[in-house]
Amino acid sequence: SSAILKPDDFVGISFWLISMALVASTAFFFLERDRVSPKWKTSLTVSGLVTLVAAVHYFYMREVWVETGSTPTVYRYIDWLITVPLLMIEFYLILSAIAKVPAGVFWRLMVGTLVMLVGGYVGEAGYVAVMPAFIVGMIGWAFILYEIFAGEASKINATSAPKSVQSAFSTMRWIVTIGWAIYPIGYYFGYLTGHSPADSAGTLNIIYNLADVLNKIAFGLIIWTVAVTESENSK
Amino acid sequence: SSAILKPDDFVGISFWLISMALVASTAFFFLERDRVSPKWKTSLTVSGLVTLVAAVHYFYMREVWVETGSTPTVYRYIDWLITVPLLMIEFYLILSAIAKVPAGVFWRLMVGTLVMLVGGYVGEAGYVAVMPAFIVGMIGWAFILYEIFAGEASKINATSAPKSVQSAFSTMRWIVTIGWAIYPIGYYFGYLTGHSPADSAGTLNIIYNLADVLNKIAFGLIIWTVAVTESENSK
Ligand SMILES: CC1=C(/C=C/C(C)=C/C=C/C(C)=C/C=O)C(C)(C)CCC1
Ligand SMILES: CC1=C(/C=C/C(C)=C/C=C/C(C)=C/C=O)C(C)(C)CCC1
Repeated sequence: SSAILKPDDFVGISFWLISMALVASTAFFFLERDRVSPKWKTSLTVSGLVTLVAAVHYFYMREVWVETGSTPTVYRYIDWLITVPLLMIEFYLILSAIAKVPAGVFWRLMVGTLVMLVGGYVGEAGYVAVMPAFIVGMIGWAFILYEIFAGEASKINATSAPKSVQSAFSTMRWIVTIGWAIYPIGYYFGYLTGHSPADSAGTLNIIYNLADVLNKIAFGLIIWTVAVTESENSK
Repeated sequence: SSAILKPDDFVGISFWLISMALVASTAFFFLERDRVSPKWKTSLTVSGLVTLVAAVHYFYMREVWVETGSTPTVYRYIDWLITVPLLMIEFYLILSAIAKVPAGVFWRLMVGTLVMLVGGYVGEAGYVAVMPAFIVGMIGWAFILYEIFAGEASKINATSAPKSVQSAFSTMRWIVTIGWAIYPIGYYFGYLTGHSPADSAGTLNIIYNLADVLNKIAFGLIIWTVAVTESENSK
């Protein structure tokens, strides 16, 4: 039988809060699909898939945390391995609403994602020393940032897309920069301060959890806002 | 294995009843969305999210109560921390159907909510003496009431909105006054009468549960009524 959440387990409370917020977000994105014009429907579907997949993982992660107080690393990375590519697809869909986008852009974003996550996983799971693994992860992320700020993906935006789509693109770009930066900060506090990972588990998880609220839920809400605005304008 | 509800556990029965009513309400709001015109759909979505999130929490709270006979404080507040902001969003959506509403209104309602709930939580969870915590919570609620009766949010209503929207706004305002007043009454009977909190747990929970029926389900039904009426008028 499962353990009961303690009133002073704030990390556990954050797992719980977010798991519920993810359930609500999923229902929201799936239901609101029918309000937007056809070309925006897929974007809302994908937003809802991100929160759906994450919701299921949060239920499992919550359980691991509440029962053992240890970091649910493997569930976390399984979640990211599905949700980060979905976010990259989302990015690509927004880009495609602006212009014809070469498939190479998409594949480079995927390669960056994979390097980033494999780097992080081998470090957190203890296969490789935490510092070199961190560096590999950072290189993957830097590669994504290069692609969207200076590479082919960045050039696409210059063309004449509707204002709201352009501003969505630029907001999403900042989310991938500022919002995603929270994860390596979490990794730093979890593994690179010299304390034992067991002692830092609370900090690590609360930082990752907060980052997920921003990058999964807020990211989806931005897309919903553009989708609704654009659908109403095109009426 | 989980304990079985006893026929004389009336608090447990109220948890059970409400958890089921919330499931039904969720299905109702989500299904009825397709009857209303696009601008009302989000309001019904949000009503359904409130009851969905609450339904899940009531399943857990019910279990805690039936198995241990103790107050499920932490689940209750996690629920409120999601559903009260959703109700504030609902309020804001109705206001926005009347006029252009400055974002500051929304943020002030959120700040009031947070002060109210943090005050209540630190009191009920035992971090702070129950009386000062209660006062902090009351200040948060007073701040919300000020905003909607005398602040910027109250001024918006004066303009010429459709009758049904105006009357919905005024009903919602009274719900936030009279309906929400039931919660501090519950807190009073739970912690401020001089009896031990364990002895008062039944009273506390039955009062909170009744308040939730009104503030989650009846509140949603009011919105559903306006949405349906307005959608038919605009045909
Ligand atoms: C850079 C870096 C990291 C970045 C992780 C990121 C950016 C994860 C993003 C997850 C998202 C956005 C999930 C949303 O659903 C790690 C692996 C923590 C450690 C290695 C260095
Ligand atoms: C004023 C006050 C309280 C008010 C709580 C309220 C008003 C909760 C509302 C919950 C709702 C509306 C949930 C609906 O989904 C507390 C925290 C009990 C105690 C401190 C003083």
